[in-house]
Amino acid sequence: MYVIAVYDVAAERTPKMLKLCRRYLHWIQNSVFEGELSELQIKELELDAKKIMDESHDSLILFKSRHFHYMEKQLVGKSLNDTDSFL
Amino acid sequence: MYVIAVYDVAAERTPKMLKLCRRYLHWIQNSVFEGELSELQIKELELDAKKIMDESHDSLILFKSRHFHYMEKQLVGKSLNDTDSFL
Repeated sequence: MYVIAVYDVAAERTPKMLKLCRRYLHWIQNSVFEGELSELQIKELELDAKKIMDESHDSLILFKSRHFHYMEKQLVGKSLNDTDSFL
Repeated sequence: MYVIAVYDVAAERTPKMLKLCRRYLHWIQNSVFEGELSELQIKELELDAKKIMDESHDSLILFKSRHFHYMEKQLVGKSLNDTDSFL
């Protein structure tokens, strides 16, 4: 499945979440990632994320689309991935 | 169209971008918004965003899906929209 993941976690947990998401997906902006994952990988990502997150404070949203061609991505401004500055 | 918008702009331009995105979409997390927009509204949002953004530094990504039911949204952790803390 094509997955877009966006997280909002406290600063002290950001490095771990970033590392986790990068293991499964491609970083595209700020705390936003995308990629192709199987249902099993999505489940693994969710479980690993829960180990890092404080679920009363942090959140992770996964937008899932069965086929990438159902989604169109439009960029305004600076192109993706050409910077090392991220949260 | 069902639209997910995520922006990454410098702190001094964040309030304006937030206000703009809220005019068109529903805020769901951090700098992430979603909603139904026509092609014309998407164009308007893009043009308005460009007036705010420094395109050499900031970025806005629009993920567009023709039908909402092609997308599934999964939340891990804190539920959406129950906080006023956003970037």
